[in-house]
Amino acid sequence: MGRVIGIGVGPGDPELLTVKAVNAIKSADVIIAPRTEKKEGSVALDIARGYIGETTQVIYQIYPMIMGFEKDTGAWDDNAGQIIELVQTGKQVVFLTLGDPMFYSTYIYIFNRLEKAGIAVETVPGIPAFCAIASQLGRSSVEGDDILSIIPATAPEEKIRQALAACDSAVIMKVSKNLDRIAEMLADTNMLEDSVLVSRCGLPDQEVIENIATEKHRRLNYLSTILAKGNI
Amino acid sequence: MGRVIGIGVGPGDPELLTVKAVNAIKSADVIIAPRTEKKEGSVALDIARGYIGETTQVIYQIYPMIMGFEKDTGAWDDNAGQIIELVQTGKQVVFLTLGDPMFYSTYIYIFNRLEKAGIAVETVPGIPAFCAIASQLGRSSVEGDDILSIIPATAPEEKIRQALAACDSAVIMKVSKNLDRIAEMLADTNMLEDSVLVSRCGLPDQEVIENIATEKHRRLNYLSTILAKGNI
Repeated sequence: MGRVIGIGVGPGDPELLTVKAVNAIKSADVIIAPRTEKKEGSVALDIARGYIGETTQVIYQIYPMIMGFEKDTGAWDDNAGQIIELVQTGKQVVFLTLGDPMFYSTYIYIFNRLEKAGIAVETVPGIPAFCAIASQLGRSSVEGDDILSIIPATAPEEKIRQALAACDSAVIMKVSKNLDRIAEMLADTNMLEDSVLVSRCGLPDQEVIENIATEKHRRLNYLSTILAKGNI
Repeated sequence: MGRVIGIGVGPGDPELLTVKAVNAIKSADVIIAPRTEKKEGSVALDIARGYIGETTQVIYQIYPMIMGFEKDTGAWDDNAGQIIELVQTGKQVVFLTLGDPMFYSTYIYIFNRLEKAGIAVETVPGIPAFCAIASQLGRSSVEGDDILSIIPATAPEEKIRQALAACDSAVIMKVSKNLDRIAEMLADTNMLEDSVLVSRCGLPDQEVIENIATEKHRRLNYLSTILAKGNI
């Protein structure tokens, strides 16, 4: 029997993989690279590519909605089934995920299926985008006894407003077509002024937007994150 | 002129350093290892030790309260001054921090002083403890469109209660002598049942407490974190 190692490749810079993740990739027989239906290629695979050996097999698996909910469970079952077969033939399988595998990742749904099937799974954490962004900007994500809310921009407005009111600093994830309403809510909680948005952190086409208010009407890449602080 | 690289060594397992952090340590002339007044040695140094070259100088710097606020600013100024002198003599200085340098770390206060003095500083993110804990337990820290509150147990009770009420999942940091009141607040928001506490994650004396309710009266190491989920 082989086994599965799910690893977080971090947000973009290949040097932000952990030593453990690199070792797992180097000793893998098979790399599973998740991709969406719409786009060719896999961002996670691009980040990890430099560590993958020449004889390692790479399998793309299509996930119906890579950053959202477990919608089409049939596709998930099929993908898990393919991994289980590989493990049963003795393969060391490495499953790549962007950022951290247990932090807003659909990896958990694959993990749960593999665990249920009695497959040995190890998970290796990765650097979440908000940590990489904070380091790159030279700005703390949160300090001292402050409370940090991590909020997907896709959550219901009432919940977002409540969470913003209950924190000192905020990280807004998955900001893409929601920038308008997020900017409005940040303004209402007096957090817009001390906000910065980073899109595709550590990737070649990274973008930093310091003045969110003037950029409200843009539609951003889904790998976009805002760091915000209250002005209290 | 030399420069400073501030790196996060992650929560405990030396293999959870990033490739970038390891490279920085290997090419450093001087390693700054922060320690508290009370305890000999430095946890961050212990984690990084295997990557430090034989000829690299290690300097311990005492910080008045390593996980809290910037209290004794004189000590901070002195420590920053020592680093600035090293850089001015052309040294490559690596400053070690536990976890991630921009996430509840006092590194930001050193970073701000160095930036102000015109010193070139690069910061390398690290794995936060909550991510390592989630991977190790095989449990997501947060999923889908859920909101995650990250709450220091040392925050005022009213703020903690408000933040717990406004989130779906929570990470409670710096749980040590506060376990009693935190357990009570988690129970009140119906989150205690699906909570788990991990102390000194990835270190040799790591401890996992699945049933927090029965352990309420213990005093824990300050490197203790709770992952909690609501039962809605």
